[in-house]
Amino acid sequence: MAIKEKLSKREPISIVTPSNNGKAVLLCGFVKNVRIISKNLKFILLEDRTGDVQITFRANDIDNITLQRIDKITPQSVICIEGTIQKSDICKRGVEVIAHEMDILSTSDVPLPLDITGETNSNLDTRLNWRFLDLRNKRNRTIFLILSDFIKHSREFFDREGFIEIFTPKFLGAPSEGGAEVFEVEYFGRKVYLAQSPQFYKQMAIAAGLEKVFEIAPVFRANPSFTSRHDTEFTSLDIEMAYIDSVEDIMNFEEKWLIYVIKKLREKWNDVVKSEFGVEIKIPDTPFPRLTMHEAYEIVKEKGIEVEEESDIGTPGEKALGEYIQDTRGHEFVFITHFPWKIRPFYHMRPENSPTLTLSYDLLWKGLEITTGAQREHRYNVLINQAKEKGLNLENIGFYLDFFRYGCPPHGGFGLSPTRFIMCLLNLKNVREATLLPRDPNRVYP
Amino acid sequence: MAIKEKLSKREPISIVTPSNNGKAVLLCGFVKNVRIISKNLKFILLEDRTGDVQITFRANDIDNITLQRIDKITPQSVICIEGTIQKSDICKRGVEVIAHEMDILSTSDVPLPLDITGETNSNLDTRLNWRFLDLRNKRNRTIFLILSDFIKHSREFFDREGFIEIFTPKFLGAPSEGGAEVFEVEYFGRKVYLAQSPQFYKQMAIAAGLEKVFEIAPVFRANPSFTSRHDTEFTSLDIEMAYIDSVEDIMNFEEKWLIYVIKKLREKWNDVVKSEFGVEIKIPDTPFPRLTMHEAYEIVKEKGIEVEEESDIGTPGEKALGEYIQDTRGHEFVFITHFPWKIRPFYHMRPENSPTLTLSYDLLWKGLEITTGAQREHRYNVLINQAKEKGLNLENIGFYLDFFRYGCPPHGGFGLSPTRFIMCLLNLKNVREATLLPRDPNRVYP
Repeated sequence: MAIKEKLSKREPISIVTPSNNGKAVLLCGFVKNVRIISKNLKFILLEDRTGDVQITFRANDIDNITLQRIDKITPQSVICIEGTIQKSDICKRGVEVIAHEMDILSTSDVPLPLDITGETNSNLDTRLNWRFLDLRNKRNRTIFLILSDFIKHSREFFDREGFIEIFTPKFLGAPSEGGAEVFEVEYFGRKVYLAQSPQFYKQMAIAAGLEKVFEIAPVFRANPSFTSRHDTEFTSLDIEMAYIDSVEDIMNFEEKWLIYVIKKLREKWNDVVKSEFGVEIKIPDTPFPRLTMHEAYEIVKEKGIEVEEESDIGTPGEKALGEYIQDTRGHEFVFITHFPWKIRPFYHMRPENSPTLTLSYDLLWKGLEITTGAQREHRYNVLINQAKEKGLNLENIGFYLDFFRYGCPPHGGFGLSPTRFIMCLLNLKNVREATLLPRDPNRVYP
Repeated sequence: MAIKEKLSKREPISIVTPSNNGKAVLLCGFVKNVRIISKNLKFILLEDRTGDVQITFRANDIDNITLQRIDKITPQSVICIEGTIQKSDICKRGVEVIAHEMDILSTSDVPLPLDITGETNSNLDTRLNWRFLDLRNKRNRTIFLILSDFIKHSREFFDREGFIEIFTPKFLGAPSEGGAEVFEVEYFGRKVYLAQSPQFYKQMAIAAGLEKVFEIAPVFRANPSFTSRHDTEFTSLDIEMAYIDSVEDIMNFEEKWLIYVIKKLREKWNDVVKSEFGVEIKIPDTPFPRLTMHEAYEIVKEKGIEVEEESDIGTPGEKALGEYIQDTRGHEFVFITHFPWKIRPFYHMRPENSPTLTLSYDLLWKGLEITTGAQREHRYNVLINQAKEKGLNLENIGFYLDFFRYGCPPHGGFGLSPTRFIMCLLNLKNVREATLLPRDPNRVYP
């Protein structure tokens, strides 16, 4: 049978280890480079998702026509080979594969529009334009393998904790949280709006009795800015849980989850992360430090950063808080609690006797906000008053207010951006590095 | 400590079994009904996500003020109780809970706008308008618990098979597969389009070297119809895998996955599904029967259903095929293969020497299409010719065609609608029953 007809028997290049010396293997991958030593000895560095390996072509082991075809193989072409694993003192990994058969599955054009090695300086825009080539670089591909594992272990954890996964609509009849930064869609002669978060619907799931729910899905924000932390669409991880005593239950749950996931990622990825990103995956101590927003304002002001009370602390402020907590507590994480009512949405619960505050928090990691969480107001009458106080049009949100009319447990939850998590984990400079195909006001391709 | 302040200690009602006789428990849930036997003896049927149980309030076990409050509790209010599990010959499940403490967490308005028991006939529209109440019915809630498990076990399987999860953009610069049924979005003074499928981007992931990928995410189709099988937005489960030998590899993979998942669902859910939906979760035999589209046309015609060759087989045709395969092979599933090129998209691969056909398939379950799959054309020049043959604007899809210029492995994949899967599994009449909040041209609330 021709090698082309048994591709499904292929094995990952990671199987090529000295301990598998002598084993016959079928490998597939991209050609990193071809080295012609002589007409009787040629090398190909072959790479797949799991790594690279030297394939050695010698006149005695492979037919002559195949050997000749190697000279014309262009970099990044896709080939398959059959061969034998062989220990080698010369090769970097102490092992190579002696090829017996080879076939070309797909030939790459030359020249490549992107330097995949990353050795010449490609800016992020160019990399994103050629994202499919950019990800053939191990470092860049690793980001997405880790993102996938982050999501996997998160689901694992949520499942163990009794959460179920829900799928909420992205088309909304009315803008979910006021009209700012919401995208409009032409919808059979009328307008609908793209969900900025699953907030209302994960709360509906609580009112429905689903008790503990999560969703990992795109959200859309018509954000005209071009910062390194914002996109017009991104994947959001949202949870909501019923029968909590206070917002502390949410913070404790988030802490437990993050520890679980970071441990899992450390086990599998720490070595690669060290070598590719120069950073260690550390398990944070618990409990994470906590600061009230009031304390946070004081710290930020002391650092000479201007910030008004009852307003958001801003990017420089968050960065300063990250440094402060690192310096004073040796910790990368910090919960900022008790955000002012003025800058939180109407559905956040307020502490009894402190109507200027909310039972909410942000979680910062290395000075970057990765989560917003809160206990929600589940008391129908209180909720209506809060909506009025915020000047909302009650008609637009009537369907939402109804969720709380016929019995609703106390509950709370949070939303986290997985790409921001990865950005912090790997010390990436831009959230777009961790987004497969970022979208901003100017970027809607590829 | 007041019972209200220790809700996080609550346990699921499923813990209330005769074998836990004597155990102290804290339970929370919705009040299904209140029965006042006398001023000294009252019952509440309490329900949470895991089931219901009788709570017995006796004058000797609980303080008098609390006992009096019970009279005013409205159905569907949310309460918490502390009590002791006690075996009982009278109660349906052989067990009840004797309450020592009780508190009301949230009071429901009366009357309810929906009969939650489902005993009076509520049409689906009314149910969907009050979805959060509708899901307090065990049967209806069960649909979403099973959907969550279906997704969970699918991911489990994909992970074991070496797949990674990707998150592709929903905003597209150009309509992905022609302009039909695509939603337009106002985007900073221009138009963008909502993804009808992640097709192009899961193929990009293959070109990027990610090898095996899946995505479970919303897709959007501006479908003006109101059938029981279509929505304007739904969750799509998509996979794509590299280094296949033929479309058979995709079909075999799908078969293996479905068997895995159906087995898992049967283990956990078969009893509930039998009692709530009157249907058994059966493990299908493998391999699933296969018919070519040519054979399918013949069978459908023989059944007296009009269908043109080289056109889609239509809903009555699919139903007839489902019956045929049940009658002749005793099987609920059937792969229909070799769809005509005329009705398949340009990126489907054609068999060598049969340019009127494609290496594609649909999978029918009980006569309903749940999957479309294919081997994709990965050869750049062939792909360009196929796009031209279909009359596509090459400029619009230039970014996509580029994916195949710099080496791309042979690959294929499929897309499946999880809600259609659940519809077939549970013999539901309408896909909307399995959609948390369906969207159609008239429905964008709640």
